[in-house]
Amino acid sequence: MKMKVFKSTRHINFADCDPAQIVFYPRFFEMFDRCTENMFRDVGFYWEVAQATTNYVGMPLIEVSAKFHRPVRFGDTVEIETWIEEIKGKVYVVLHKIVNKGVLSLEGREVRCYAVKAPEHASGIRAIPLPADLVDRLAVKEPA
Amino acid sequence: MKMKVFKSTRHINFADCDPAQIVFYPRFFEMFDRCTENMFRDVGFYWEVAQATTNYVGMPLIEVSAKFHRPVRFGDTVEIETWIEEIKGKVYVVLHKIVNKGVLSLEGREVRCYAVKAPEHASGIRAIPLPADLVDRLAVKEPA
Amino acid sequence: MKMKVFKSTRHINFADCDPAQIVFYPRFFEMFDRCTENMFRDVGFYWEVAQATTNYVGMPLIEVSAKFHRPVRFGDTVEIETWIEEIKGKVYVVLHKIVNKGVLSLEGREVRCYAVKAPEHASGIRAIPLPADLVDRLAVKEPA
Amino acid sequence: MKMKVFKSTRHINFADCDPAQIVFYPRFFEMFDRCTENMFRDVGFYWEVAQATTNYVGMPLIEVSAKFHRPVRFGDTVEIETWIEEIKGKVYVVLHKIVNKGVLSLEGREVRCYAVKAPEHASGIRAIPLPADLVDRLAVKEPA
Repeated sequence: MKMKVFKSTRHINFADCDPAQIVFYPRFFEMFDRCTENMFRDVGFYWEVAQATTNYVGMPLIEVSAKFHRPVRFGDTVEIETWIEEIKGKVYVVLHKIVNKGVLSLEGREVRCYAVKAPEHASGIRAIPLPADLVDRLAVKEPA
Repeated sequence: MKMKVFKSTRHINFADCDPAQIVFYPRFFEMFDRCTENMFRDVGFYWEVAQATTNYVGMPLIEVSAKFHRPVRFGDTVEIETWIEEIKGKVYVVLHKIVNKGVLSLEGREVRCYAVKAPEHASGIRAIPLPADLVDRLAVKEPA
Repeated sequence: MKMKVFKSTRHINFADCDPAQIVFYPRFFEMFDRCTENMFRDVGFYWEVAQATTNYVGMPLIEVSAKFHRPVRFGDTVEIETWIEEIKGKVYVVLHKIVNKGVLSLEGREVRCYAVKAPEHASGIRAIPLPADLVDRLAVKEPA
Repeated sequence: MKMKVFKSTRHINFADCDPAQIVFYPRFFEMFDRCTENMFRDVGFYWEVAQATTNYVGMPLIEVSAKFHRPVRFGDTVEIETWIEEIKGKVYVVLHKIVNKGVLSLEGREVRCYAVKAPEHASGIRAIPLPADLVDRLAVKEPA
């Protein structure tokens, strides 16, 4: 299955940068979190609405990583591509590519799950596979 | 002199919010800082370019305040208006109004100055009035 | 009534600073929020416990301000003093003083209230005065 | 060579947490950055001093990752262990273990280098191996 690529643009402000005049690296993970949320919003799945109306709790992280190829500087405007690369059982993998003036600057990878309320568990939550209708909305529709 | 109002829109993500499900209040000051920077960018004054090509150092804060009228929640999309309210000597006052679904949610006020390099001072910087050409670019042009 | 002064120390890391090599100003509000919370913890009032066991919801902000006297730089270690300056009806005022090598660098002022659940209100919460036993714990005990 | 383990303690405040009442995941990377910096400070290597007095520029990230085993909640106090796990050529690997009430909650891994000024390079910087005297200070001294 081919998944939709969610594209966004981000201007790098003073507020994003550190004393080395480049993006303070934890800020990229904030961008990844926003992009993942916005990818779901883009297909009509709103986290705060799902929390209020279904047993959905959130999309907790299991693993996350990033590879930094080139610094991103104060004043740059970057293009971000975000998509679900893989779904395996109860977890799914989101990739983020950040491109600056045509050059790949960094790549991020989040392994998340879809968590629902589970009063019977000590933690109060449990993971289930991404619901089929949500996967369907995130997938590229092939011509019949 | 009437100053231009810089308008922007901000979607409130999970990343902006605290355990009370509303925007964590220091995040609003990050938004103010971005909006002030972007207001200057909008008239062609880029902080990082001015730093590299002139004696401009930055726009340090002297005072800042905010009044919170109503909470802004996860999932809201707010409209922000930013403008220079007053210029008095070496300082200027930026106001920010954040409106949520037509209702004023909060107001911010930053008192800043325009700082330039001053090797003769212990701090290495000194404040000067906003340059006249920059004020001119930020002002609303009246018909002749 | 004289209120206890809560003292804390904060090392300023790279992570706190901006391209001007000084603390990015919204980070001070994060410090204020931590100090206010920790002042209450210091007298045995834990926000997360109160939320789970009473009708306490949180300490929302009504107004906040800061005056910046001197920059705080990467590598500095500052002393912070936090106390309740005033209680007037349903709101209370917290002051924060940040001192760097003996010199006052900035002052913060938060106007907050004590909010409890109020299902009968549209917002779901309402403000009540700081509970008397909590004020008592925050007050300096005078010798009898 | 056995490297020193730098231990620190971190109280998890309201300011660290997200609408799910747990630490917002990018905040862990801010903690990692602080701990790496503080590990170097602990052996007398101060980033801001080295920048002012040597050709040292910073410790840029090449890769970073984290594995989340259990959530860390508002009100928890965690123990963090930070050490250099490996030095290979011009890069070194820092590991961070965050333990909450005796249970491993998450692990972080930063691959960084030691960067110095290099006016002859387009980027202005180049990586060199961690200086021998710095490695020596970070190493556990074996009895002779």
